[in-house]
Amino acid sequence: MRKILVIGSGKSTSFLIKYLLDKSESENLYITIGDINIENAKKLIGNHKNATAITLDVFNEISRIEAIKNTDIVVSMLPARFHIEVAKNCIQYKKHMVTASYISPEMQALNDDAKANGLVLMNEIGVDPGIDHMSAMQVLDSIRDKGGNVILFESFTGGLVAPESDNNLWNYKFTWNPRNVVVAGQGSAAKFLQEGTYKYIPYNRLFRRTEFLEVDGFGRFEVYANRDSLKYQSVYGLDNIKTLYRGTMRRVGFSRAWNIFVTLGMTDDSYTIEDSENMSYRDFVNAFLTYSPTDSVELKLRHALKIDQDDIVWDKLVELDIFNANKRVELKKATPAQILQKILMDSWTLEENDKDMLVMYHKFGYELNGKKHQIDATMVTLGDDQTYTAMAKTVGLPVAIATLAILNKKITTPGVQMPITKEVYQPILKELKDFGIQFNEKEVPYLGYNPLNN
Amino acid sequence: MRKILVIGSGKSTSFLIKYLLDKSESENLYITIGDINIENAKKLIGNHKNATAITLDVFNEISRIEAIKNTDIVVSMLPARFHIEVAKNCIQYKKHMVTASYISPEMQALNDDAKANGLVLMNEIGVDPGIDHMSAMQVLDSIRDKGGNVILFESFTGGLVAPESDNNLWNYKFTWNPRNVVVAGQGSAAKFLQEGTYKYIPYNRLFRRTEFLEVDGFGRFEVYANRDSLKYQSVYGLDNIKTLYRGTMRRVGFSRAWNIFVTLGMTDDSYTIEDSENMSYRDFVNAFLTYSPTDSVELKLRHALKIDQDDIVWDKLVELDIFNANKRVELKKATPAQILQKILMDSWTLEENDKDMLVMYHKFGYELNGKKHQIDATMVTLGDDQTYTAMAKTVGLPVAIATLAILNKKITTPGVQMPITKEVYQPILKELKDFGIQFNEKEVPYLGYNPLNN
Repeated sequence: MRKILVIGSGKSTSFLIKYLLDKSESENLYITIGDINIENAKKLIGNHKNATAITLDVFNEISRIEAIKNTDIVVSMLPARFHIEVAKNCIQYKKHMVTASYISPEMQALNDDAKANGLVLMNEIGVDPGIDHMSAMQVLDSIRDKGGNVILFESFTGGLVAPESDNNLWNYKFTWNPRNVVVAGQGSAAKFLQEGTYKYIPYNRLFRRTEFLEVDGFGRFEVYANRDSLKYQSVYGLDNIKTLYRGTMRRVGFSRAWNIFVTLGMTDDSYTIEDSENMSYRDFVNAFLTYSPTDSVELKLRHALKIDQDDIVWDKLVELDIFNANKRVELKKATPAQILQKILMDSWTLEENDKDMLVMYHKFGYELNGKKHQIDATMVTLGDDQTYTAMAKTVGLPVAIATLAILNKKITTPGVQMPITKEVYQPILKELKDFGIQFNEKEVPYLGYNPLNN
Repeated sequence: MRKILVIGSGKSTSFLIKYLLDKSESENLYITIGDINIENAKKLIGNHKNATAITLDVFNEISRIEAIKNTDIVVSMLPARFHIEVAKNCIQYKKHMVTASYISPEMQALNDDAKANGLVLMNEIGVDPGIDHMSAMQVLDSIRDKGGNVILFESFTGGLVAPESDNNLWNYKFTWNPRNVVVAGQGSAAKFLQEGTYKYIPYNRLFRRTEFLEVDGFGRFEVYANRDSLKYQSVYGLDNIKTLYRGTMRRVGFSRAWNIFVTLGMTDDSYTIEDSENMSYRDFVNAFLTYSPTDSVELKLRHALKIDQDDIVWDKLVELDIFNANKRVELKKATPAQILQKILMDSWTLEENDKDMLVMYHKFGYELNGKKHQIDATMVTLGDDQTYTAMAKTVGLPVAIATLAILNKKITTPGVQMPITKEVYQPILKELKDFGIQFNEKEVPYLGYNPLNN
């Protein structure tokens, strides 16, 4: 039997493991799942005969090497910062490796060694990064294959709550790491290209510079810009492109309300609040407002941010119960961002029967024979339940399919890779369709980046 | 003769050197001024017989030690980061030392050595830090001496243009390091205490949370909060204080207009703008606004920031000529802050006959015999001309007076010091009066921090 070692069995591994188990008979696979805590792995395996869960501390070099030596390929589903030691062992013991994480400089540094040993170290093959790379490159290559010149590429992804479970005013629940949502966009300004001009949006304006998108059957969304839209400009072969913009999708109205937290300073993760442990939610809000012996926290906030009493953003704040004087923060030496995260988790944690949704939207503008064209490609994936989420599906299935394709020598180009070549994206995108992960492409009039045309 | 070595002869040394020269006969002093460029030192010395200018590269250990060995006391007027090697040599060769800079952790680390050798390493004895410490401690000590309990301390300093030279809409010109003005307030949130509650203001709100102050004969000012108002809480003996707030003074209206730069992202110093060298001022502004094939930069800015066409802040922007399409930035790989600084220096550089102004305002609230009291203390110093500026006066004179007092063994407490003890502040504040640097103290009704009372 061919042996696959999956390290990590967190929330995003359910579909990955299910896929491998379902293929284990026909493909002659034996799957070992290693984690420091094997509860979830056991649950995912059930009593399948072609799999086992082992306790594996990835920081224990001896047991890590032992596990890696005894497999044919390694899938690391650990947080990104834990991949590198695994990757070094993979090279040492000549094993292929697959991750869904961004290629770190340390990982990239293994490229020569991987090539020299004929090993595939495939990364960024989940979703954002992953399916976005593959679906974008497929359309970009097809445009270029027919002689087109790409002048615009915009790409947006959102991890959201499914419409049927969407029951709060923010139209949002946490489906990915809550912390990443709270600190999203911080650091230096968001940078992108619009019609040949570099544009910069500082954090305090990021959530006020949104744009709208429509997805057939799912209505309207808004997007705010990612920090670095230009990250894949060269990798995608878009060095001469006029417009390059990547962003994050939310339901319309989220960003305007979120900007209240940004403006007040509640998303700041760079310092700790005095005596945060004993604060009420109300105290927390008040810490960002002027002192007054008489005025209420509510009125001070409304006045500071000029919020009318009948503005829906006000209801959004109230819905989060942030003015509650009895709920305690309870976190010691917490940053504003940590406290805000806790407050939001009270309201935005998925409930048992909630389903999540993964939405992706690409726009491709190109010139062909002197005419301008545009293709819009959209994809929506819904979760089945709290285990088999849209997130786990879109992250785990491409990882699983790539793993088997490498084992079967359908993906063979050695080195530290990401899924941007036909060798990789064609078979994977094709198979993803069987699981309902499919892009809806349509030709639309070329709009460029002109608000007047929209 | 007693020998004094002054290292550095920049803009803030004119009064320092003049004071020492004027005292050189009666006090039997010989002053050596060392700088890498001795042009300015020569000009300041003229043909005075008790002084000489020497070329001194502070990074050249041999000549640095040679100069320090041959003196009785060292005054370092270099930028703060260059003090430490001088300070180490001072300890090595048993010389006292005076600086106007904040005590760095490296400087503080020399405290034990300084004490063991009976050396005074006096720091923070210019202005902000310096005169603010001394004038505050004098009043705080007098309140405590009469049995009062200090419940409020607010302290504000502004380096501004003198009223007679105040001829632009911002009522501001650069009198200190322009770079510090452009990046002021950045980093984590401003933190202070109001009526027993910790308050936090994020950078994007800092210039919208101002307060007003009146100075007799000079009209109205506004203040915005410093990053860390609590820095001297313990040093000043204010651990149980209810309100502690330090800030920077500007003329009213400055901050509201400045906030436009903050909001657009033009003060960001954390990344560089693409092709900044070839940008016009107009291009720079446009980089922070949405793309439009038709709308003007002016209208886009007005719309983004909701500025009415008859709002004075608009005239302030126009006055700076930032919409000029012909003026070029010319700076290679410049950050937004560097570009903004250049644009502002076109308008805000002091002209030959311009005079500057240094303003300081302290509020002291205290309880005595069950009653609440308040003392407001203000100080305004005007510059004489572009050499003998208010800045050079308020920085240089306390340094000079302290230097002579140490030489004359009137200030003797050894160690890494700042001017917060009576031994230091009493004689210095007394002598500063002879130069017109004097606080105007008055009892006012205790207002606390209650906007309704103001």
